[in-house]
Amino acid sequence: QCNLTGWWKNDLGSKMHVYAVDSQGNFSGEYYTAVSSAQKPIKPSPLLGSQHLDEDGQCTFGFTVNWKKFSDSTAVFVGQCFAEDCGEEVLQTSWLLREKVDSLPNNWKATR
Amino acid sequence: QCNLTGWWKNDLGSKMHVYAVDSQGNFSGEYYTAVSSAQKPIKPSPLLGSQHLDEDGQCTFGFTVNWKKFSDSTAVFVGQCFAEDCGEEVLQTSWLLREKVDSLPNNWKATR
Amino acid sequence: QCNLTGWWKNDLGSKMHVYAVDSQGNFSGEYYTAVSSAQKPIKPSPLLGSQHLDEDGQCTFGFTVNWKKFSDSTAVFVGQCFAEDCGEEVLQTSWLLREKVDSLPNNWKATR
Amino acid sequence: QCNLTGWWKNDLGSKMHVYAVDSQGNFSGEYYTAVSSAQKPIKPSPLLGSQHLDEDGQCTFGFTVNWKKFSDSTAVFVGQCFAEDCGEEVLQTSWLLREKVDSLPNNWKATR
Repeated sequence: QCNLTGWWKNDLGSKMHVYAVDSQGNFSGEYYTAVSSAQKPIKPSPLLGSQHLDEDGQCTFGFTVNWKKFSDSTAVFVGQCFAEDCGEEVLQTSWLLREKVDSLPNNWKATR
Repeated sequence: QCNLTGWWKNDLGSKMHVYAVDSQGNFSGEYYTAVSSAQKPIKPSPLLGSQHLDEDGQCTFGFTVNWKKFSDSTAVFVGQCFAEDCGEEVLQTSWLLREKVDSLPNNWKATR
Repeated sequence: QCNLTGWWKNDLGSKMHVYAVDSQGNFSGEYYTAVSSAQKPIKPSPLLGSQHLDEDGQCTFGFTVNWKKFSDSTAVFVGQCFAEDCGEEVLQTSWLLREKVDSLPNNWKATR
Repeated sequence: QCNLTGWWKNDLGSKMHVYAVDSQGNFSGEYYTAVSSAQKPIKPSPLLGSQHLDEDGQCTFGFTVNWKKFSDSTAVFVGQCFAEDCGEEVLQTSWLLREKVDSLPNNWKATR
């Protein structure tokens, strides 16, 4: 219950595939983003994260997506799984996208 | 250069220990937070993340900290490594902390 | 076009009433929040903000809500107005909520 | 005590001038940013905001900066004033910068 293993899709059309979650709550997978601010064409990108294994099936989780295949940016997502009355599971997440900047004085604008 | 392996300390007094970074840029480690909004006493917490392996040594990275040993929250950090003139490396990061909420209507206040 | 004057409602059920926008783009109004993390009962709260007056009707804007009638917190919202094909206007906003903390060492957790 | 009236300077070298705070806590002023992601040259920009008037001098506040003189973006800041032991006042703030995007599908990347 509230195991992240499997496929998920968000409102923007991005998809992610979470492979098996291990006994510690760690997981890896692939993120297929539908949106990008990079120049190069989008490619599926590796993700790595961790979730709680609470019995109530409403666990929080977080993961990192490394966009190295087409960008020098990194994104992190953090959220919680909710089990709806109908039995369907919904993920609510927030994210930060870090773009590479050339020097410390530009650090202020690197995260969106 | 700009390999996250080792010990890092932030302005709040929190420390993290990043174990070996593998050839994909993935790493695990432990986070020793100096601050907490949880009830239970703080414990060292597992972290899992990923970094770019750019040759210029100014790579972006991200990681997840699972606070399961004393809390049902999860944090994610995203940032960039900067090599200063003196040769010292500095990490600039932003973070999001997800606290568990009991239901979807409370989702709005779950992330800080 | 894309004048904020009037009533707006968000997904959480909160409403806001923006009084006349002046020739500089400044406006005041009242915010009726549907959600709160404060102890005291919610009351309508004054808002004060500013918008661009672009001719394309897709202007960005920002405003501050001072919750002083029932809390010592302050919120800021920033967003953009979009005119949909059907002629309806939609606001997309992000917000930050600042809660009062008792001292600088607790500053890290004051904003969500 | 903890009245925002006057000049303030931040770590990036940006300055702001807050004119008189009225009896409601409302204020206007001018923001002289040291950094920008806009094409055009930076100009002093009008700000408009609101602060609490708590007796302990540790009030929260928020304000909007309308960059209309050189950009179609808007920024909001929210923070708290702290009185240090030495009597000096320090502002701790967080901000969001909204850049104008051309359509709703690009909304995801508009805020940093």
